[in-house]
Formats: sequence, structure tokens, C-alpha cells
Amino acid sequence: MSTPRSVTLVGLGLMGGSLARALRGIDRPPRIAAWTATGIEPRAAFAAGVIDAAPRTLAEALEGADLVVVATPVGATLALLPDILERAPEHAVVTDVCSLKAPICEAVAALAFERFAGAHPMAGSHESGWAAARADLYHGAVVWVTPAAPGPAAAVRSLWSALGAHPESIDPGVHDALMARVSHVPQVLASTLAAGLRDAGITRASLGPGGRDMTRLAASDPALWSDLLAHSPHVVPALRGLSDRLARLADALAAGDSETVSRCLEAGREWSAR
Amino acid sequence: MSTPRSVTLVGLGLMGGSLARALRGIDRPPRIAAWTATGIEPRAAFAAGVIDAAPRTLAEALEGADLVVVATPVGATLALLPDILERAPEHAVVTDVCSLKAPICEAVAALAFERFAGAHPMAGSHESGWAAARADLYHGAVVWVTPAAPGPAAAVRSLWSALGAHPESIDPGVHDALMARVSHVPQVLASTLAAGLRDAGITRASLGPGGRDMTRLAASDPALWSDLLAHSPHVVPALRGLSDRLARLADALAAGDSETVSRCLEAGREWSAR
Repeated sequence: MSTPRSVTLVGLGLMGGSLARALRGIDRPPRIAAWTATGIEPRAAFAAGVIDAAPRTLAEALEGADLVVVATPVGATLALLPDILERAPEHAVVTDVCSLKAPICEAVAALAFERFAGAHPMAGSHESGWAAARADLYHGAVVWVTPAAPGPAAAVRSLWSALGAHPESIDPGVHDALMARVSHVPQVLASTLAAGLRDAGITRASLGPGGRDMTRLAASDPALWSDLLAHSPHVVPALRGLSDRLARLADALAAGDSETVSRCLEAGREWSAR
Repeated sequence: MSTPRSVTLVGLGLMGGSLARALRGIDRPPRIAAWTATGIEPRAAFAAGVIDAAPRTLAEALEGADLVVVATPVGATLALLPDILERAPEHAVVTDVCSLKAPICEAVAALAFERFAGAHPMAGSHESGWAAARADLYHGAVVWVTPAAPGPAAAVRSLWSALGAHPESIDPGVHDALMARVSHVPQVLASTLAAGLRDAGITRASLGPGGRDMTRLAASDPALWSDLLAHSPHVVPALRGLSDRLARLADALAAGDSETVSRCLEAGREWSAR
């Protein structure tokens, strides 16, 4: 499938806004309409010439769309999906950009909607909102695409390829378990580390480059993340595993067991060097 | 005190090597001699025109020095200090660059040496060794200087100021407790996170930008860090505190207590925004 002629974005924050900006920059860009609950971001994007229409209602926004991209947080996506799937034009493909795929895919399956393929671009920022959106956010990024009917999956892959991203297929459950480890737990770690520094009265100015890297994610949007964490069953065991590892390492350090400490540091370095 | 006329570096890895390169670049640079146990790095630095002498013995290297900078890991510094303090020329000031200050300052005090002021530049890299040394490593960095007799402290501050760094005075114990939180625990976290990813069979290629930031430090030199961690009494309680925080957060997530989760994420963001 070639690039769609008409794309509707539901949600226009960092993810949706960057998608709009990226779509605007391709050869023969599609018509872009965007809708959000407040209407604020679509009006700003329309005024900036990034989108073609900022309809007042979701129903109007969906009219004539070939492709509908839901770019809202997990909770909002689950809340909006029934309405979107019901109102989407007969041949429109629907996709999303949530960092969790199983809850979304299960909701779509429960609604017996067949023109859906979920996606999750591995790109982001600790910043959020339309103001942080940028045309190159997805360039070179891996985009996980969850299996679905071949047609919709091809349409979604083709969209991301057109933006310079690399679509890869994955099972929703496998995806979510992987994300818990590579994205969700790192986010919780950064926040926890920063919360501990706050409680100890230590400011960012006291950090070196390593400490700054390790706390950058703490600036992420708390509402977005607590919504996401609440929907993932994989984060709890991964966090407990990490907590146990740290406790064992503290015990080893306290006992002067430098071999155990070295083994952990070496495992980390070995992983880095691969 | 103005810039010294003759500087001897003991150790020529990332820290000592970057110091040599930075000193080479200032107006009227001092004569620079460097010594390491293998002699390999000083020979390379001499061949590259970065230092003026690569003496074979420590005693030769110390001859005629106004300022001696010990730039070796904590364990090696503690091992070398007695010899260095005994052989240093009568008026030479001695300093170091270790990330821990209390063990070093206590060793110097035990040797009743009075021309010492410790330093710790808050600059570094996950890379190490002479090959990673660069002239601008210390530019703009805070350098903690531990109190000592006024003369040596002024000489050490003046050295770092000449390289574009910002010297700040701190008590050795206060310094080490602070570093445990802003540097040592973040390092252990990055290594632990990476070790967990390794055990789960997940490679670096599966990470997004956040996960990459959170594991960059895992590439650090394990020998250097296990040496450092073994010398700090502050890391164990800080690690235990973090392990407890993570366990409590996992419990809250498992119980659907989104308020506790939000509170942690918000504390982290509040800290970031300051």
C-alpha cells in the first residue's frame, strides 16, 4: 500500500504531533486532520500549517480518513477505541502508538474490529506535548507492529517506512514483556533515583554526567507513566527482580565479597560490549 | 599561586591523560612528566608530544616536581601514597583525583604529610585509559577540593581553574556520602540493569533512547569500580534504601495503588524541574 491520502490523528502530543510534522515533510503528503478532547493542539497545529483540518468533533475528524492513528495514552486509547472503531470509515485502517500492545489488541479483538494493526515507535523524549513534537522524532527508530490481518499490517508498516522508521513485527504479549525491561523499569528507576535525591536534599547541580544520564527520564510526564504502568502486568516482577539484585549486591558489598560485586559489574560491561 | 612549572602525573589513564592534554594546551604550560607501573602510557604520550618526560622509575619522575598529581584508582593510590609522599621534593604539593576522598585524606593524615590537598573532578566517561583521554574533559566541570593547609589547597584550586574547571571546597566525609548518591549508586544501578537485561537475553539493539541512557554507564571499567565501591562505606545504605523503594513501588503497583506510584513519579519530576 502506498501512503494514505487522508490521515486522521486522535491525540496531538509528542507522538501524534511528531507524526503530523513528519507526514507533512514527505513527498506528496496526505491530508491531515487531528482531534483532541480540548481542541487546543489541533488549533495550534492548524495555525502553524502542520495539519489541514482541526474538526470540532471526533466524528467529523474521522470522516473520509484512510488511516486513523490513535496517539493518546493507554487509558485514553482504551476509552476512545469503541467510538473510533464504530465511526471509522468502512475501509479505513486504524492503528495506535501506545507503549503497551496487549491491552490495546485485546480491546480491539473484543470489539471484533478487523482493520487494526497496533504500532509502537521506539522513540520518545522526557518532554511531552505538542510543543515538544518534532519532524525527525521517528527517523531511524524501530517501530513494533503487532500482527493483524495482512492488509492493515502492511498499511501501518508502509506508513512508518515512509517516515524513515523501521517497522518490525512482534506478538503483543512478547512486546509488553520486552518493554517492561527495556523501557518501563528504566523509567521507574530514574524516577525512584530522583525521588531519593530529592528526599536527601541533593539537587541536579551536584550530579556528574553519569548521574545526569541516569535521572534524565525522571522529567517524564507522571500522569502518562502512571497510566501506562497501571496497565502492564510485566513491570511488577521485573521491579521485584531488580530490587532483589540490588539488595544482594548491597549484602555482598557489606560482607566485603568483592567477587560478587565484580561479577555484576562485569556482566553489565559484557552486555554493553556486545 | 600561579601555574606550577613542573608537574608529575602518577597514572596516565582517562583522568591523568586528560589532565596532561589539558595542561599542554594552556598558556605557558608546565613541564610534564608521567609515570605508570607499566610505562606504556607515558611512552605513548611522550611519542605523541603530550608530555616532556617518561621516566622509568617513580623516584625519577618525582624529581624537580612542583606539583604531583596522583591519578590512579583508589586502591592503587592508597598503595602508592607512602612512597610518593616520602620521595616528593621538599616544596612539592601533592594532590589526587580519586572519586573517594575520606580514605585518601585519612591515609595522608596518618603519614603526617602537610603539603597535600585532595581533589575530585566531576568529569569522566564510561570509557577509560589513555586512549580515551581528551583535553576538554575537565572544562566547565566542578572539582571538589578537600580542605588542607591553605597553601596546598590554593595550589590545587589554581591548577583546576587554569584548566577551565570550577574548584569547590568540601569535607571528605560529606563528599563521599554525596558521591555515593550522585555517582556510585547510579553506576551500580546501570550495571545491575544491564546484568538483568543480559540474563533475560535482551540486547542493546532492543533499547530506546531512555533505556540507552540508563545503561550507558554499564560500559565502565569493572575493576576500577569494584575497587572504588569496596572503599566506600556510604554505598551499602544508599543501595538498600533504593532496593526498598523499588520493592515498595512494586507492591503498590501490584495492589493497584496508583496514588503511591504517582507520588514517586511526581517526586522525581519535581526534582528534575528544580
